[in-house]
Amino acid sequence: MIIREMSHADCVALLAKSWVGRLACCKENVPYVVPIQFAYVDNRIVSFSLPGQKIDWMRANPRVCIQIDDIADKHRWKCLLVNGVFKEQVRDEQRDRAWAALKTDNDWWEPGSFKPGPQAIASERNHVFYAVDIDTMTGREAFDG
Amino acid sequence: MIIREMSHADCVALLAKSWVGRLACCKENVPYVVPIQFAYVDNRIVSFSLPGQKIDWMRANPRVCIQIDDIADKHRWKCLLVNGVFKEQVRDEQRDRAWAALKTDNDWWEPGSFKPGPQAIASERNHVFYAVDIDTMTGREAFDG
Repeated sequence: MIIREMSHADCVALLAKSWVGRLACCKENVPYVVPIQFAYVDNRIVSFSLPGQKIDWMRANPRVCIQIDDIADKHRWKCLLVNGVFKEQVRDEQRDRAWAALKTDNDWWEPGSFKPGPQAIASERNHVFYAVDIDTMTGREAFDG
Repeated sequence: MIIREMSHADCVALLAKSWVGRLACCKENVPYVVPIQFAYVDNRIVSFSLPGQKIDWMRANPRVCIQIDDIADKHRWKCLLVNGVFKEQVRDEQRDRAWAALKTDNDWWEPGSFKPGPQAIASERNHVFYAVDIDTMTGREAFDG
């Protein structure tokens, strides 16, 4: 197995084709990590969530780290780390833009933000939309060799 | 889709059958998340890593959060969150015990800790073995209904 750094273009390509990542945030030096569904638009990551711990913590400390991967098997994988800053999307046009990107696959998903119980149809009004402005993005890939 | 809290027994069962998780740690309120391979032994999570950012940060702040999931599709999934404390395993018998658990599937993997370049055969001497003592463990599962 050979491991090498991914080029920026390969990082962007992986980000563009992925729909799930693991978002870590922290508060008072306690970490928290949950899966998120996201879209990659205009060099930013956009997502939405019901209110809850993740949103509360990112409002308190906007620094986030998002991990995205593409694992074929233990010896062929890509792993991407994005460091960025949470920006809540509060204006209608921001929310519309984020929602348009997120609903393209018409089947949304987010274990970290759904609440237990039967699920209602997605209401844009109940959700917090946010972007993550990317500060740094690094990736590694492994392949047989 | 219905989402419900997982029972403790179901959380333990998911932990016992999983081999990959995403471990988040943080330092000076900056989060970091990487995939890890782990084993679940004696009610603890054990893993190992080459020295690097993850180990440095967990030595500085031992609070960690590990996210583990089992995703059949967007409407059928389990998602587990473990909050715990990093404990470096320095004694030979601790390292031997961790290694015995980790090598049972005889095919180890850890994108977050390998370094770029051709990989040497695993040397136990170069690696840092650690356990995560579990403080809390909570899970949610979704199913059609």
